[in-house]
Amino acid sequence: MKENRYDDPVFFEKYSQMPRSQGGLGAAGEWEEMQTLLPDFAGKRVLDLGCGYGWHCVYALEHGAAQVTGVDISERMLAVAREKTGNGNARYIRLAMEDADFPAASFDVALSSLALHYVADFGEMAERIYRWLAPGGTFVFSMEHPIFTAYGSQDWYRDEAGNILHFPVDNYFNEGPREAVFLGERVAKYHHTLTTILDGLLRRGFQLRRVVEPQPPERMLDMEGMRDELRRPMMLLVAAQRA
Amino acid sequence: MKENRYDDPVFFEKYSQMPRSQGGLGAAGEWEEMQTLLPDFAGKRVLDLGCGYGWHCVYALEHGAAQVTGVDISERMLAVAREKTGNGNARYIRLAMEDADFPAASFDVALSSLALHYVADFGEMAERIYRWLAPGGTFVFSMEHPIFTAYGSQDWYRDEAGNILHFPVDNYFNEGPREAVFLGERVAKYHHTLTTILDGLLRRGFQLRRVVEPQPPERMLDMEGMRDELRRPMMLLVAAQRA
Repeated sequence: MKENRYDDPVFFEKYSQMPRSQGGLGAAGEWEEMQTLLPDFAGKRVLDLGCGYGWHCVYALEHGAAQVTGVDISERMLAVAREKTGNGNARYIRLAMEDADFPAASFDVALSSLALHYVADFGEMAERIYRWLAPGGTFVFSMEHPIFTAYGSQDWYRDEAGNILHFPVDNYFNEGPREAVFLGERVAKYHHTLTTILDGLLRRGFQLRRVVEPQPPERMLDMEGMRDELRRPMMLLVAAQRA
Repeated sequence: MKENRYDDPVFFEKYSQMPRSQGGLGAAGEWEEMQTLLPDFAGKRVLDLGCGYGWHCVYALEHGAAQVTGVDISERMLAVAREKTGNGNARYIRLAMEDADFPAASFDVALSSLALHYVADFGEMAERIYRWLAPGGTFVFSMEHPIFTAYGSQDWYRDEAGNILHFPVDNYFNEGPREAVFLGERVAKYHHTLTTILDGLLRRGFQLRRVVEPQPPERMLDMEGMRDELRRPMMLLVAAQRA
């Protein structure tokens, strides 16, 4: 299923109110750790899969990328991305990332921020990205953590008074679609095991460089709900290298 | 804490009744997948950390290992291991694996089966293992999965009738000791995040070759409780290579 929730005006409006939508990369809890996984962008050809508002495309250009290609299924997201990029050397393509196709060795860096959990077949996607990368190229991504996606609801288990008891895990080895609620709207995502993600990359020839579960930085811990983020991992950050 | 539960006669007796203690490797649910991670043992110098009954030492010898060194804190376990090994070219050393020390490049293969979750400092242990391995040497291990160790009790969350609801995760980023019940006895283990384990190996120079969460094989699914093993991962299998 290639769902285009972000072109639903209500969903898009809610998304645009999120701190990370308003404040950009610096407002994203995982950004500080994500930065430590990024390669040097100088002179590189960069692909961003599920580029959304284009924050990472702009960042790559600001850090010397020779050209940037952003792919996203949502026209509304791309409109914002184009506006943010201004005259930068970027092209934006409206496609589900599963439908994108590029000649072999077209890019030096592939990025994907919180989008791969919308893809049904992680391994097939990894295989295509491997092909699009030049030898030695890097693939850096964040996605929802298997612990976070397994159960489905993506919500805490609470007592009758509404207090958090713990985070539930179930159906872990039953990979496939999950229906979660995000910003009060139903969103279809896919649960992949850690094996499918990491062993999937290794089996397709990638070398793993970094595997990080980000924790919110100290300075954000007093934001509402942020301390609960220390109770279970929500995201997985990975840096991999093509042979 | 270097706990020696296995020299407690009651605990040892209970352990000796487990299917995996009686039936050996073939009776361990993860063994079939573990085998796919193992290197060729022919002519290799093999170290087994937390060798227990010595099943893996015997296996390595049967598959051509030149010599095998088993380390375990429990004298009772080592007595069984010595008996099982017979005249094989093995030496057994009674030590907590944290206290073991060997000259650099002493081994070609380091193994550890379900023992590293008893070690407080995973990174320090990985560093020492790296040093003990010869260049190109491999480190293959199984340990309890971070999802399994985070909460502490290692038990399902159940309804009032005792039915399993799900598996609880909490305190994920709070690494350190946990007290679980195993075979009806209290056992001290350590929770490590996936980041500490995998990124810890990568940062110390290991390359990751395989990362696998084993599922019980089809033929074991009708054993009591085995289908529940598909509801959450219990173990992590890793094959890593020294540069």
